[in-house]
Amino acid sequence: MIFPLGYKYASTYAKIRKAKKDDLALIVSDAPAVAAAVFTQNRVKAAPVILAQKNLKSSRGKLKAIMVNAGNANCATRTGAEVARQTCQAAAQALAVHPNLILPCSTGVIGVELDPTRITKALPGLVKKLSPHSFQQVAEAIMTTDLVPKTSSAEISLSGGSVTIAGMTKGSGMIQPNMATTLGFLMTDAAIPSALVPTLLKQATDVSYNRISVDGDTSTNDTLVLMANGASAVELTSKDQDLFLEALSRVAQELASKIARDGEGARKLVTIQVNGAKSDDDATRIARGIANSPLVKTAIAGSDPNWGRIISAAGNSGADFDPAKVSIAMQGVLVCENGLAADFSEKQLKKRLNDRDCLIQFQIAGKGKGKSKFWTCDFTEGYIEINGSYRT
Amino acid sequence: MIFPLGYKYASTYAKIRKAKKDDLALIVSDAPAVAAAVFTQNRVKAAPVILAQKNLKSSRGKLKAIMVNAGNANCATRTGAEVARQTCQAAAQALAVHPNLILPCSTGVIGVELDPTRITKALPGLVKKLSPHSFQQVAEAIMTTDLVPKTSSAEISLSGGSVTIAGMTKGSGMIQPNMATTLGFLMTDAAIPSALVPTLLKQATDVSYNRISVDGDTSTNDTLVLMANGASAVELTSKDQDLFLEALSRVAQELASKIARDGEGARKLVTIQVNGAKSDDDATRIARGIANSPLVKTAIAGSDPNWGRIISAAGNSGADFDPAKVSIAMQGVLVCENGLAADFSEKQLKKRLNDRDCLIQFQIAGKGKGKSKFWTCDFTEGYIEINGSYRT
Repeated sequence: MIFPLGYKYASTYAKIRKAKKDDLALIVSDAPAVAAAVFTQNRVKAAPVILAQKNLKSSRGKLKAIMVNAGNANCATRTGAEVARQTCQAAAQALAVHPNLILPCSTGVIGVELDPTRITKALPGLVKKLSPHSFQQVAEAIMTTDLVPKTSSAEISLSGGSVTIAGMTKGSGMIQPNMATTLGFLMTDAAIPSALVPTLLKQATDVSYNRISVDGDTSTNDTLVLMANGASAVELTSKDQDLFLEALSRVAQELASKIARDGEGARKLVTIQVNGAKSDDDATRIARGIANSPLVKTAIAGSDPNWGRIISAAGNSGADFDPAKVSIAMQGVLVCENGLAADFSEKQLKKRLNDRDCLIQFQIAGKGKGKSKFWTCDFTEGYIEINGSYRT
Repeated sequence: MIFPLGYKYASTYAKIRKAKKDDLALIVSDAPAVAAAVFTQNRVKAAPVILAQKNLKSSRGKLKAIMVNAGNANCATRTGAEVARQTCQAAAQALAVHPNLILPCSTGVIGVELDPTRITKALPGLVKKLSPHSFQQVAEAIMTTDLVPKTSSAEISLSGGSVTIAGMTKGSGMIQPNMATTLGFLMTDAAIPSALVPTLLKQATDVSYNRISVDGDTSTNDTLVLMANGASAVELTSKDQDLFLEALSRVAQELASKIARDGEGARKLVTIQVNGAKSDDDATRIARGIANSPLVKTAIAGSDPNWGRIISAAGNSGADFDPAKVSIAMQGVLVCENGLAADFSEKQLKKRLNDRDCLIQFQIAGKGKGKSKFWTCDFTEGYIEINGSYRT
């Protein structure tokens, strides 16, 4: 794993969650970075999401630090807005910058008041711990029901020299209204024109975070941030833009697929490829329909090559296609050809479906050029166990 | 349970499914009835659905008999259309009517060829068994993963005299009625103008089968039929129309909610009432969002009054509302007031959530008049067990 220049990280235990495990973290750029973020589309938005949007707007896309806590989503509480404001102010003071340069993120239970003094008291010590070497600790501090920390990085040779992207993320129920959320933080040391940052982030998000599903629920706290501090002194020219976007998308996809693999109770990462749809949007609609079908996901948990459920889920997705032109492969084995059962050994395929990785290819014959890649996980008893008793 | 006049029923074991349990059934009206049906909106439609639509059209809404098999959906197979045609022809011959007076229905596994001779050979014997007293046997023969047969009936005093409605239905998985759901058969002895039958069926469906969800999947075979044979000699006048519709809707709602209660692996029937939305459509959107959230459904399985998940699911539904105006009650206990935690005893409520019936009331304060009632079930390990190994 390689890291971009000019960032420092720190985490600590601020007693926000019961388990004694770091729950408060900072990601700080030495010089304020240009930045963009995408947020949950849920109509119920947590207080830190609302303040983060406001801060990014008033700072015109400048960002000094991301402040994140786990263990409490600071959502649907009486004091939420004030808690977010106070803690951002305290972080700004400790870092000697304007409060609108702080982006707050919270993840955890909804509807429980968050005591701001736990954060404000911990901040001075946290700032003292900032180090370029604590990236991994922060990736661990933001975990909730995650079983593993999730990180990814890439180095790209641009015309002006080499730049680095590193990212971390959390999440294992794509939506946990209770433990809330996917958070994702992408840092690069490339020098990127401010106006370009939101575009790059949106394009990378569209092929990564917007292409995963664990349970089809969207949280109240989802936040994905891209910071670019220029510490490499390498400018992103328009000539290099595609190269950079490709690497950024790859890092975002790796992070996003790690969330799907770590889906609550999941044993398998399921990759869904759709080709030949009328448009990319239609292809994504089909892929999402398959990824969100509990019947498909339970079949995969049981290593059952039940392609009838796959074509039925696609038919139910709202996308426009002719079922008689559909072929489906699982683990590379053709199971459905032109909408009908293909000739394959169910016994052999069942064995191969025991792998930790499952590939579903959904191909529509004809002139359509629409394609999409999507990630999800299988659906096991573990999901029910985790979510039937989360708060108790 | 009371039954309408002029209908006969029969079921038999035709070796379509492995388990020795009746899997072929007929519902026959003595005189051809006026009829309407609603079908799955899934783009992948089973062969009997396509033929049923064609038959109803060419007979101009006349129907002599419903022929239904369980154990094989006759969907996504090479010979599906021909099997549906041949078996309808055989039924027509045995009943001495035109084949377009037969409505075929199939339910079971997708993608496996259905041998038509199992049905054609069984039909003559089946017709001989027809009896007004075999309603319950047919309700049992159409079951797949259902644990219980599902029936309902009503008697209505109209101005011209008394008429009866009786219905049966099946389904416990792949349930998210879009237009119609699973299989459902409604029989009445009222004399109803032919043009009115589709309208009555659509209105009853909209408040019953279109308001339930088990897993958010829509099947390829959903069919709901209403037959009216006039055997009571009581005409449905325009004056009595609302009365009749009310009773028809009640029977349909009872059947639909029985599907939700018998949802695969379910222990609880969950009734969701939404009030104060901007429109009935928005209210249904919110109710469906809550009903389809795996996080809400697992919380209810665990008797956890986790209202954060409920408001988050509503916020994710696409409906337009202000979270700060939302109040939520579970089992009549206020758990969320104006978007914030209400003061309630979690311990006491947990106990009451152990009931087999769970009521969620979602109220938006203000001028909105939109309301909806929706049924779903809790989400348990049982669903995973059933669907991880359905075919094996």
